[in-house]
Formats: sequence, C-alpha cells, structure tokens
Amino acid sequence: MATEGVDAVLLSIGADLPYLTGYEAMDSERPTILVVKGSGAPVLVIPVLEAPRVGGGGDVEIKAWAETDDPYALVSAAVGEARRIAVGDQTRAANLLAIQAIVPGATWDRASDLTARLRVQKDPEELELLRAAAHGVDRSLARVPGELRFAGRTEMDVARDLQALTVEEGHEVAAFAIVASGPNGASPHHEPGDRVIQAGDLVVCDFGGRWQGYSSDVTRTFSVGEPSAKQEEVHRVVHAANQVAREAIRPGITCQEVDRAARAVIEEAGFGELFIHRTGHGIGLEVHEHPYMVEGNETPLEPGMTFSIEPGIYLPGEFGVRIEDIVACGPDGVDDLNQADRSLLVVS
Amino acid sequence: MATEGVDAVLLSIGADLPYLTGYEAMDSERPTILVVKGSGAPVLVIPVLEAPRVGGGGDVEIKAWAETDDPYALVSAAVGEARRIAVGDQTRAANLLAIQAIVPGATWDRASDLTARLRVQKDPEELELLRAAAHGVDRSLARVPGELRFAGRTEMDVARDLQALTVEEGHEVAAFAIVASGPNGASPHHEPGDRVIQAGDLVVCDFGGRWQGYSSDVTRTFSVGEPSAKQEEVHRVVHAANQVAREAIRPGITCQEVDRAARAVIEEAGFGELFIHRTGHGIGLEVHEHPYMVEGNETPLEPGMTFSIEPGIYLPGEFGVRIEDIVACGPDGVDDLNQADRSLLVVS
Repeated sequence: MATEGVDAVLLSIGADLPYLTGYEAMDSERPTILVVKGSGAPVLVIPVLEAPRVGGGGDVEIKAWAETDDPYALVSAAVGEARRIAVGDQTRAANLLAIQAIVPGATWDRASDLTARLRVQKDPEELELLRAAAHGVDRSLARVPGELRFAGRTEMDVARDLQALTVEEGHEVAAFAIVASGPNGASPHHEPGDRVIQAGDLVVCDFGGRWQGYSSDVTRTFSVGEPSAKQEEVHRVVHAANQVAREAIRPGITCQEVDRAARAVIEEAGFGELFIHRTGHGIGLEVHEHPYMVEGNETPLEPGMTFSIEPGIYLPGEFGVRIEDIVACGPDGVDDLNQADRSLLVVS
Repeated sequence: MATEGVDAVLLSIGADLPYLTGYEAMDSERPTILVVKGSGAPVLVIPVLEAPRVGGGGDVEIKAWAETDDPYALVSAAVGEARRIAVGDQTRAANLLAIQAIVPGATWDRASDLTARLRVQKDPEELELLRAAAHGVDRSLARVPGELRFAGRTEMDVARDLQALTVEEGHEVAAFAIVASGPNGASPHHEPGDRVIQAGDLVVCDFGGRWQGYSSDVTRTFSVGEPSAKQEEVHRVVHAANQVAREAIRPGITCQEVDRAARAVIEEAGFGELFIHRTGHGIGLEVHEHPYMVEGNETPLEPGMTFSIEPGIYLPGEFGVRIEDIVACGPDGVDDLNQADRSLLVVS
C-alpha cells in the first residue's frame, strides 16, 4: 500500500477478503466491507445478522450494523482521512457508489492491482490443494469413458453426471459443468441444454469444483463414436497447442509469450481466426484470477503461479475442441497439476 | 429515465439485464455491459467468446470485443454524450471504475432506483411462476417429517437432502439450504456444517431454488423430538408474528408497516431485541430484491408485489426460530404463495 501510495483498501465479496482474513462475505444487498489502512486495526463493517458467522474478530475490529443503521457511515468513519482508496474488484457498484458519495474528493482504484501480487504466487500448501483438486477431476475424467453414456442423452444429463463424479471424487462442490455437443461446441461458454447428443458428435466437457476452498477446472473433448478425419485433425492441432504452451512455461517468460506459443501452433495450421479466446487464466481461490495468459500481459512467470492452458478451435455450425489443463510454473519448467489423458477418447 | 433525468443506464450481471432482454451476463472478469439510452438501439458490449450465447440480437446492437480489445472504449462510445448515468447495482466495481475513468464529468446513480419500479410488480405470468416455485418447496417440506432423519446426522447431510428434495419437486436448481441446529440456529445465516444434530434441538431449515428463472425461499423450524416449553413458547410468538404480518398485507400500507406488524408481536412477548433482522425482502428473478419490509421503507404495497414474511427470534447459545413464507399483495389482502404447515413439527 505504501509503495503504491494507497491509503485504504476496501474489500467486500470475492476472494481477497477470505485470502486475508479467512472470512468470506455473503454476496447480498447488505454490504460487508473490510477497511484496511496502513496502520491501525482493520475494521470489518458487517450486517449484525451475519456477525455470528465471524466468530472472534482476532485483530480485526468488528462494526456490526443493524437493519436501520447506515453501513456507509461506518465505512466512512473507518476510512477517515484516507483519500487514495483501492476497492475490491467484485464489490457491488451500488456499494461503491454509496461510498463514493460519502467519501468525497477521493481517487479510486481497483484492489486487484495490490492483492494480485499477494495471491498470484501460491505457497506450498496452496499448491498442494490445487494439485489435489486437479487430481480429483482427473479421476472423474478417467471414469467418463467407462461409466458415462453420451449418445441419446441430453447435454444436461451428462452435465449432471459430471457434477456427480466431481463430488464423488472428493470436491465439496461441483461448481460448473459445460457440456457442449456437436455445433454447440463452437460456443466456448455454452450452457448445457436439451440437445440430444448423437453419434458423430464431438462433446466439449469443461468442469470443476471447489476443494477445501481452492478450484479445479479441466476440459477434455470426447468423440461419440469414431471421429471424422476433420475432427481428428482439429483435435490434433489443439493437442499440439496445449503441449507446446505447457512446454514453454518457465520462470521469466511473460504471460503473453505463453499465449503466443499456443496461438502460433493454431495459426500455423490455418485455424488462427477460430481460436477466439486467450490461452489461459490464473486459478486459486477463484476459478478465474490473475495472471491471465493473454497478448499484452507482460507479467513474467514466477515459480508458484498457477493457471490454465486451454487452447481451443471453434467452427461455427460444426463443432469445437478445447483441451484445458491447470499447471504451475515450477522452478525449472512446467508442473502439470492435471495429468488426465489428453487424447481424443471415444465414448458411446 | 426521462422523468429521473437519466441519460443512460448500464446493466451488467444481476437480474435487470435478463428481465429486460432475456439474456443473463456471465459473472466474470470479462465485462458484459448493456448500454440503454433514451433513444436509439441499446448496445450490448459482450466478450466475443460469449456472443454465440446471445443468438440474434433483436433490437439490440451487439458489440463483441476480442480478448485484446478494450471493452470500456466500446462502452464509452455507446454512452456518447450521456453524463447522468445509472449503473446496475451488482456491476463489478472494477468495471465501474474503468468506465468512470473513461467517461469523465458524469454523475453516477444505482440503476435499481429505476429498474425496481419495473420489477417490483409482477405480471400474472411471473406470479404464477413464483406460485409454482413456492408450491414446489411446500411439497418438499411436506416430505420432511416422513422422509428425513435429523438426529445423529450432520447439518450438511440434512442440507443435501433438502436440496435433493427441492430438485425432485421440480426446481431446476437447489440454490441454497441453511440448516442451523441447536445453538447454531441463533445465527440467521448459519452455513450448515459438521455439527451432529441431537434430540432436543430445534433446527431452522431455510432453503429454495430456481423455477423457470424465478425463486423460491421458505423457512420452517423443526423440533427433533418433543420441544421444551421454552422452545414451544418462542415458536408460538414467531408463528403469531408471521400470521399478523401476513394479515396486515393489503394495497396501500407501507413496507415499514408490515415490518412493524411482525415486530410488535415479538416485542410484546419480550423478545424484541432478539429479532435482529428486517421482516422480509422482495423476491422474483432474484431471491432478494425490492421491496424490503424494513423500518424506514415508506413504499406503499401494490397488487403484484411479492416478498417474504420471515420473523425470527435468535437466542445466542440456545436456539433460533424463523418461519418464512413468500406472499403476494393481492387486490384485497394477502395472497399466500407458500402454504406449508407452519406449526412446530416434530421430526426424528
């Protein structure tokens, strides 16, 4: 904070607050705001009905507001004379606007410019939780060809099965499951629906959950019956892009170089226009967090950074292929957290 | 917008966007922002990889941004000369700060001051979806005493069972389940955990889900074995407060009068200090939305408003009781959407 000239950091919903305190704010119209300044005890402004969830405040001063109190007055009092203020990225706009109205003349920045510096480099304990989470979904994936039937069932049916496997293999929560079959595979964030999966489809399965608070996120693309030559070719290109990007990982290379490594393979194969997203995102307490593997991000990799490598090719009206792994930057190169088979597996 | 002198409304995550357009933005670090002005086509600024989910834009102009584009420049271009701007309440602060930086000299308000006027009064179709959702959890509740075992199992076990019943009775998603047993019942938003439920406990069960996009939310308090005289007394007071508040509902009385009706019963019984939250919240596409039944809210009820009535009494270290129903304001009085038995049911 001192280096950046920031006088106060205000944290609400999102992972910065639990990262620093162990307490996760409810995502609600009732504001919970932690005020951290350069000196003095941090102040947690919290709805009185949620105060019992906090337990002892430790070094944090708890200011519980009743339903007819003004929480923003408590925030303003805690902010005091601070005028260069950083606000948690996910804080609700309604809260930020109310605070801006009661703290005039301040400048406002997003808190992730500070907090990401703490959070991007995982310590050994965090790394082992992310590894355990990745191995959990690896085990789920290993069961897919033998246990999940695709043809004749809806995307939603398969998504439910994937979520059940995620929980059975040890996750607390199955946070999300994209199942995008046939032409729906060309929509990277397709929501699984009523489409009945057919022989000849490729099916993009992108799923993950929470493991002791940390996240998993993996994608494999399956073929329902034998794939066509075109499907095999596209999968081969994505597989190569995934591998080349993972092999590029080492301390000191920048995030954009990782993106370029994957993109070069896909461009060379003539599919560059169809790789419509960045190569990856950081992962930790949140499924998406810093650092992002994207052109323009000149952040150098450091040991302990964890992120996804997930090149994809999306052919509108036909199909899509994505292969996603979570990796860590190790001292000498990539540390593969996911190790599930990356080949184009045939399912029935 | 014209009445309020608002030049532009910016909507992102939350229910305002799907209410107006049918499209729900992903909650992600990649901004999706709809810009609505007094005239001209609304503009939807959306990540290019999510554009396939939108389908045809209808009357909305789609501005898809690629990963290396600046989405805020697109928002600024759509905002144009507008300088009194309302922002969706749940928009991420990181997005609002970036827009504020690129649209200087504007004044900023929260959008719910406008959008709540549209959303608080449900039309007949919305009302029937909320009724169907309420009847769904009523059926789940009816199965609890016969099918769910409490004693000797953890709160988390019971929470999972309630979520399963919610889905079995027709909800798409079991959105949440609070199971707060014994002394944990004194924490209104307790997260179900490893506590093993015991004979003699009261157990507050507060759960709900999504039904064709609309929400359910119901609370009943069960007694594991025969309740004590004190438990019965507290439950009787909360039951009376729930009933008196529901009977107070009619067009024209204010939200705070509904709160006062429930609160008066609890205060008269000597438990006023232990009713530590408002009496209710609006419900619709969101579980919590306007109007709020809280002291200070002088909004008069109108037919078609839907909200919870959920008085509670919380005795720290002992137990809690809450009874929550969703109701609509009908033309002549209350329209009870939930009708499940409100008495103190004994479970085993």
